[in-house]
Amino acid sequence: MASSVEQQTASPAASEAQIPRYQAIARRFAQAIREGTLAPGEKLPSVRRLRADEGTSASTVLQALAQLESSGLIEARPRSGYFVRARTSLPVPRPSAPGVEAGTPLDGVSALVADLYHSASDPSLVHLGAATPAPSLLPSAALARALAAATRRSGSGGVELAYPPGLRSLRRLVAQRLVATGCALGEDDLLVTAGATEAIQLALLAVTNRGDTVAVESPCYYGTLLALEALGLRVLEVPCHPETGMDVDELSRRLDLHRVAAVLAVPVFSNPLGSSMPDEAKERLVSLLSARRIPLIEDDVYGDLAFAPSRPRPAKAFDRDGTVLYCGSFSKTLAPGFRIGFVAAGRFKERVEVLKFATSIATATPAQQALVQFLADGGYDRHLRTLRARLEQNVARVGEAVAGSFPAGTRVSRPRGGCFLWVELPPSVDALKLHRRAHDAGVAIAPGHIFSAAHVHASCIRFSCGEPWSERVDVAVRLVGRLAGQLVGRKGR
Amino acid sequence: MASSVEQQTASPAASEAQIPRYQAIARRFAQAIREGTLAPGEKLPSVRRLRADEGTSASTVLQALAQLESSGLIEARPRSGYFVRARTSLPVPRPSAPGVEAGTPLDGVSALVADLYHSASDPSLVHLGAATPAPSLLPSAALARALAAATRRSGSGGVELAYPPGLRSLRRLVAQRLVATGCALGEDDLLVTAGATEAIQLALLAVTNRGDTVAVESPCYYGTLLALEALGLRVLEVPCHPETGMDVDELSRRLDLHRVAAVLAVPVFSNPLGSSMPDEAKERLVSLLSARRIPLIEDDVYGDLAFAPSRPRPAKAFDRDGTVLYCGSFSKTLAPGFRIGFVAAGRFKERVEVLKFATSIATATPAQQALVQFLADGGYDRHLRTLRARLEQNVARVGEAVAGSFPAGTRVSRPRGGCFLWVELPPSVDALKLHRRAHDAGVAIAPGHIFSAAHVHASCIRFSCGEPWSERVDVAVRLVGRLAGQLVGRKGR
Repeated sequence: MASSVEQQTASPAASEAQIPRYQAIARRFAQAIREGTLAPGEKLPSVRRLRADEGTSASTVLQALAQLESSGLIEARPRSGYFVRARTSLPVPRPSAPGVEAGTPLDGVSALVADLYHSASDPSLVHLGAATPAPSLLPSAALARALAAATRRSGSGGVELAYPPGLRSLRRLVAQRLVATGCALGEDDLLVTAGATEAIQLALLAVTNRGDTVAVESPCYYGTLLALEALGLRVLEVPCHPETGMDVDELSRRLDLHRVAAVLAVPVFSNPLGSSMPDEAKERLVSLLSARRIPLIEDDVYGDLAFAPSRPRPAKAFDRDGTVLYCGSFSKTLAPGFRIGFVAAGRFKERVEVLKFATSIATATPAQQALVQFLADGGYDRHLRTLRARLEQNVARVGEAVAGSFPAGTRVSRPRGGCFLWVELPPSVDALKLHRRAHDAGVAIAPGHIFSAAHVHASCIRFSCGEPWSERVDVAVRLVGRLAGQLVGRKGR
Repeated sequence: MASSVEQQTASPAASEAQIPRYQAIARRFAQAIREGTLAPGEKLPSVRRLRADEGTSASTVLQALAQLESSGLIEARPRSGYFVRARTSLPVPRPSAPGVEAGTPLDGVSALVADLYHSASDPSLVHLGAATPAPSLLPSAALARALAAATRRSGSGGVELAYPPGLRSLRRLVAQRLVATGCALGEDDLLVTAGATEAIQLALLAVTNRGDTVAVESPCYYGTLLALEALGLRVLEVPCHPETGMDVDELSRRLDLHRVAAVLAVPVFSNPLGSSMPDEAKERLVSLLSARRIPLIEDDVYGDLAFAPSRPRPAKAFDRDGTVLYCGSFSKTLAPGFRIGFVAAGRFKERVEVLKFATSIATATPAQQALVQFLADGGYDRHLRTLRARLEQNVARVGEAVAGSFPAGTRVSRPRGGCFLWVELPPSVDALKLHRRAHDAGVAIAPGHIFSAAHVHASCIRFSCGEPWSERVDVAVRLVGRLAGQLVGRKGR
């Protein structure tokens, strides 16, 4: 068995050099387990054997094993060693139904969403609703230090307006990061916004008129649906594969039938499905839209949360003519409270900039300055590595709890990044009813109802995996599973 | 002469007790000079006489005289005493023309506005363009201390989202201030926004649909016109009196002829005219709109900058049924860089809150926390008193420089608050040309062109009086005056 593991390591990724040795070892074994090279129940090599194979210390080997154990991939059996855990692997959700042009019938959804965010700070609830890492997973102390240092340095963050396009130093640091993802962008291509949500709002204002239709993924993040509704836009819901995302062929067919003003998609780790489009699909999507002169609004807030040493490329990396309005933020990875995002709006750059001035003048200066300080100090990539490992662990653990507690016929997504799971329940389960019962029992989840203007995901729920794994979370997920079981076959009753 | 001044003081305002003695004396004399009780060239009582009349110390009297002198109202003549300065009083601008329905022909305006804000941080220019107090007039050190203290206290401003409606502690402090202006509002009536600009944007989204017409003041702040254009709204420009603001009778007649989705106005110290509606006109405006079920979006960002001990009431104070969506901010009085505003949206409260979530999720937490700290520490009212006195001085000085340098036929506004002057040049002067020549000569001003979708103010300019008065500002205003003189009779050439 050791030999098969060694095969995996024959050509270690270049990036292995950048991460601690024990993490590199753990990652290799995790991959082997996921790919079935190491099957459930199989025994791992002994610590002595691993020391020899890896040419490293016992403590490094033990650290690697501890990480695999805490990820739920292996278990220690007393006096026997480490074994691959039995994984009750549920099938992934089915690809969503053919495209639905849904208009904007969001009645009732906004009240439901308001309930969700109003309860977001209720300490009596277990929070498995909002798709954001919990505050405890984010470096609040380091951010506070950066804010204090930036304030000392500038002394004027309160009084100086950072007019559009925003602080040059921040745009520069962001552009450098984007270049590393394959995007040919400079600081002058970027506009700083109040999170990706404002970026998307500005992009929509720039490329649509009221009554226009925008194509989105199905299921689609409810905030996006609300943003479309706010501007009086209609929705075309394009089917998605749970692993490869938006179906470009189906989109292409739909574009022959419908006038679409823009496509709004999350090509990397979509919310809520967790799908990630292969590079060649992203490339086809961009060139399809470029040829038809239809702008692509790309929402890339989860791309940096890949469960891998390097993140997938955004669709923007394949943009040759400014078709893509690329929207990102630091809200899912670092500092939700700063409200800092950015947009690289391609050929709509000037228009988007004036819209920023017209709708909010500027983005708060202190948060921009603090972010510059934090990014310049370094440590963001180290934080991201830790965060991704934690989220991968959480996603695995929530998935196991689902597998162990939900009724037969349940399907669950297998995201390779992000911080949520999409759970498809037997069709007889009313997810809205489940949401209400879970809430009454102290658990916040997001019902599938709100992820479609056509309400086509009425038997699905989204679990946030942003809370650190704990007994409390485990109990909460299993409780939802039991409640779901009680609702099987009782739809509408 | 002393006796006539004493008459003015027979019933000292109750508020005199709240301000330093010397300011109270200076204010009384300033009023007497403005009302003509003390005429240009008249000699003021001697210091000895004033000491006796006021029953105060020589140093208090000298402080009062120094303030009157720095406001440009009196001058010291060696060995003779203090005299009222000769004031070349120009007439106020003419009331604007009958209402114009202008559609949204803002072509070219957005590029011009972008030029304005791009040059806002150019140190080679004298900045008489943007209607915001200069950073040097704002308490940057105290704000930085508040930000640092709030960060230490909370330790989590970066990671914690302040979901709509925003921090309760901040809403509470704002509500307390609004109650003092005559508005019956509580913390639950308020939503925190990214400045008043976002508040207005949300209000517009809540009460209009693309293609609707919104009635505004003429002239109207260009940012408002851009905001309307961003949402595809049409504009009805209602004539305004330079001192009493929007003509409610004319508005009423227009409402009989046009379908108007909302009225957007700045009843107190309008931008750029500086007009302020009398209470009874505000009351009529609100009841007229209430009866017709047309919402009033009130922009009150300058109300706290009254050149008087207390500020005029906002229109919201006369709202009985939630007709008024009241928008305010701290951007013109304290902390432009914080981007903190608020909206009390009356009967549109729930809708506006969901729109906030849909378009930007939340307002940055650190700035909200810092503002709570600053307001709770006290000192905001003291700062406001100082700021208002400085701005009143600046407005007076810029007005004098205009009177002394602009061509015959020039008219200038006489605002009782705010930080700008509206200058109406002889009709043959092309303000856009003047703007370009002034810019080339190193002075930024705002051309009248951008204050109307119908471009009906093509011979007007707005001077910001937010820069501390200095030789440099004096020279700059007079330079613009000379350039204007060169353009008389040369329109179109």
